[in-house]
Amino acid sequence: MIPQETIVALATPSGAGAIAIIRLSGSNAVTIAASVFQSISGKDLSKQKTHTIHLGHIVDQNKTYDQVLVSLFKGPNSYTGENVVEISCHGSTFIQQQIIQLLLRKGAKMAQAGEFTLRAFLNGKLDLSQAEAVADLIASDNEASHQIAMQQMRGGFSNEIAKLREELLNFASLIELELDFAEEDVEFADRTAFYELLNRIEFVLKRLIDSFAVGNVIKNGIPVAIVGEPNVGKSTLLNALLNEERAIVSDIAGTTRDTIEDELVINGIGFRFIDTAGIRETKDVVESIGIQKTFEKIEQAQVVLYLVDSLQLTVDSLKSLKVETEKIKNKFPLKPIVVVANKADLLTEKEITNLQEQLTTYNLQLITISAKQKTGIDILKETLLSFVNTGALRNNETIVTNTRHYDSLLKALEEVQKVKWGLDSGISSDLIALDIREALHYFGEITGEVTNDELLGNIFANFCIGK
Amino acid sequence: MIPQETIVALATPSGAGAIAIIRLSGSNAVTIAASVFQSISGKDLSKQKTHTIHLGHIVDQNKTYDQVLVSLFKGPNSYTGENVVEISCHGSTFIQQQIIQLLLRKGAKMAQAGEFTLRAFLNGKLDLSQAEAVADLIASDNEASHQIAMQQMRGGFSNEIAKLREELLNFASLIELELDFAEEDVEFADRTAFYELLNRIEFVLKRLIDSFAVGNVIKNGIPVAIVGEPNVGKSTLLNALLNEERAIVSDIAGTTRDTIEDELVINGIGFRFIDTAGIRETKDVVESIGIQKTFEKIEQAQVVLYLVDSLQLTVDSLKSLKVETEKIKNKFPLKPIVVVANKADLLTEKEITNLQEQLTTYNLQLITISAKQKTGIDILKETLLSFVNTGALRNNETIVTNTRHYDSLLKALEEVQKVKWGLDSGISSDLIALDIREALHYFGEITGEVTNDELLGNIFANFCIGK
Repeated sequence: MIPQETIVALATPSGAGAIAIIRLSGSNAVTIAASVFQSISGKDLSKQKTHTIHLGHIVDQNKTYDQVLVSLFKGPNSYTGENVVEISCHGSTFIQQQIIQLLLRKGAKMAQAGEFTLRAFLNGKLDLSQAEAVADLIASDNEASHQIAMQQMRGGFSNEIAKLREELLNFASLIELELDFAEEDVEFADRTAFYELLNRIEFVLKRLIDSFAVGNVIKNGIPVAIVGEPNVGKSTLLNALLNEERAIVSDIAGTTRDTIEDELVINGIGFRFIDTAGIRETKDVVESIGIQKTFEKIEQAQVVLYLVDSLQLTVDSLKSLKVETEKIKNKFPLKPIVVVANKADLLTEKEITNLQEQLTTYNLQLITISAKQKTGIDILKETLLSFVNTGALRNNETIVTNTRHYDSLLKALEEVQKVKWGLDSGISSDLIALDIREALHYFGEITGEVTNDELLGNIFANFCIGK
Repeated sequence: MIPQETIVALATPSGAGAIAIIRLSGSNAVTIAASVFQSISGKDLSKQKTHTIHLGHIVDQNKTYDQVLVSLFKGPNSYTGENVVEISCHGSTFIQQQIIQLLLRKGAKMAQAGEFTLRAFLNGKLDLSQAEAVADLIASDNEASHQIAMQQMRGGFSNEIAKLREELLNFASLIELELDFAEEDVEFADRTAFYELLNRIEFVLKRLIDSFAVGNVIKNGIPVAIVGEPNVGKSTLLNALLNEERAIVSDIAGTTRDTIEDELVINGIGFRFIDTAGIRETKDVVESIGIQKTFEKIEQAQVVLYLVDSLQLTVDSLKSLKVETEKIKNKFPLKPIVVVANKADLLTEKEITNLQEQLTTYNLQLITISAKQKTGIDILKETLLSFVNTGALRNNETIVTNTRHYDSLLKALEEVQKVKWGLDSGISSDLIALDIREALHYFGEITGEVTNDELLGNIFANFCIGK
């Protein structure tokens, strides 16, 4: 560990609370803290054991700043791997600022965003994908994204990558050894075993790459577009789902001109509901812009809920339902569309059965609900969940949620496939060795064996200060 | 210590941050924490020493909630005097909620506002005035209020009261002893020494009661009313003082109809600037309501800044300045008024000297400034500071800021004066003893020797949850 400047930052959320934590990390963290700390029992802070807590006052030049608890962590047994001191002070913004300013005067410097975690990475406490998981963990706001971040932080992903990388590295060494004995035409690397390994790596990489589609929506919430004629109760449905009045509910047709987004967590999975202006034919310029936006939103959505008003279901309106859902299917053939019949409490059972049969002939799924009376909402939620491939999540498989990892995995796969192709077409070992090195490079990018300042800068800029 | 239910709450500000602290206190705090904590090194949490920190995971039914640091404090060596556990987790709101819910399922109950500090008081870790200082400390947003709260929390005030109480209690016992020997006409309590003590107590009580005026304004900020003709630059001055554009600056006379309040800390003392609509004669109904409000604001203010536009200083305008400041003086004879001539950069030195002389004849103090060019602002700030009696603050004297303490001090003073009057008029010892008991009661109310549920409820309801 290279001696590092001591950094300081508030680690708890800003604002007033019962307590706040000010965190110091660096070679002089304990010395700096000790210079402003007076223990209640007269202890010398710098002589205390790691992982101990001490009551006292922050004092400088006869001015008492606060009564605090100081937690000591001596490197390498700390979050950053350096000496770390956490000062637990009273949570007034004024006190937080005063103590941080005092520590800056005593030689600490203000931490950059993510600098504590960057140091943890540089000191080998975490690999890069684990460090990224720390930020994901703090940002997680539902069960699924939380579990994925936890698994990544605990090294599930890194271990999988590191294991493959090691095996590949082993073969790379053998093949490079062959190059040294090129004239003797020896084969240290068993080609069959090597081919098997490449297939295994390809399989794992493909699985990880595929998981990104799931991982990405789980991380960001699954987008669901709510489409339908104006005035059929889109906002009311949204409210019933969200259980509160977020969208403006109005009786005037065409009220919802702007798209409104709202989030809902169903069984630990986040959904983003996107209310749209509908897609009926119109000559109103504002509405036709709305319709264009509706199609843009449908493009982004994983599922389309097509909402109809049960009472407006005439022969004509069923025709236009058919026309409009076909429009959507033409543009987005693989997008699932669920017809949701609102105000179903006002229909007879026979009417519902008829509707059901009619929609089946259109190849459309029907759910009848009453947004006002909140019936059918649970079935709708279950249907939405059925569109999410939560199998990987349930089986505790590694799921890729990070675009950077996804890119590196794609590139690694490409190189692995090049190596396979090279073996098939019997190209020379030195070219194969080059491709293997490329693949190893992309593996290393994920876990941080291969890195550069720009990459690190980009990653840690997304952290909050104090982490 | 009576076994207490274990309470739990978030102790850090709500919202997302790098880390959050969840605090448990009660007989089962360690047991509950140990039931969901898996140490990295396999340690049993319940067997660890007090004031130690342990790295591990919060786990329940094979589900890992977070990687955390757990701090152990074993009663009575803790904030509350009970067993206390602080869980330092990743700062996502989702994680905070999940862990708190888990701890509730494991038998903890949600803490009430201030319940940790209430328990600290009930367990004798703090007296009542110290407990109140904890809330003041968290609320403090400037140097002065922070120092007062710190002093009170460290027991400065309590010690002063407790010492007087003890001496008085001593005399009370002696006088009550006399009552037991009433027939023998003995005098255990030396009347001269007793009279001296009463004088001393009276002196201290009066000083403390007087300090309330200072303490109260320091705690809440010193109110300063800015008055003057419309369009002389009140908002501009406010902005120059505040150094940013908070009030709407406009060239239309009479723009500032609502009073705008803003705070500024000068040399550690908080000032609240109250922009007013001015007090010129008007027939406009809206403006005349504004003028009425102006007088209400002047009443609340400690100082009045009467702002004039240097360029509008004709013989007539000086007359109306005289009339209007006299109006203020008539209503509030003791309120200091400082005339602030704005746009002074547009005056010659001779013009300034003339104005100075003129205002001296009106018994008014003049400060020339240019709000736009920010000259004279420092002199204005110094002048404002001169109105604050910071002597007590500088001399580190006890300052009363709490209305409850103020009330109890007033009542105690009344009883002490009754005792003195009783001694003077030679009334019987049993009546004097009663008055002493009353005085002791009020002393006890401050530090919490005398208390009741309603009083405690009122005090701790003002705390945040988690403290």
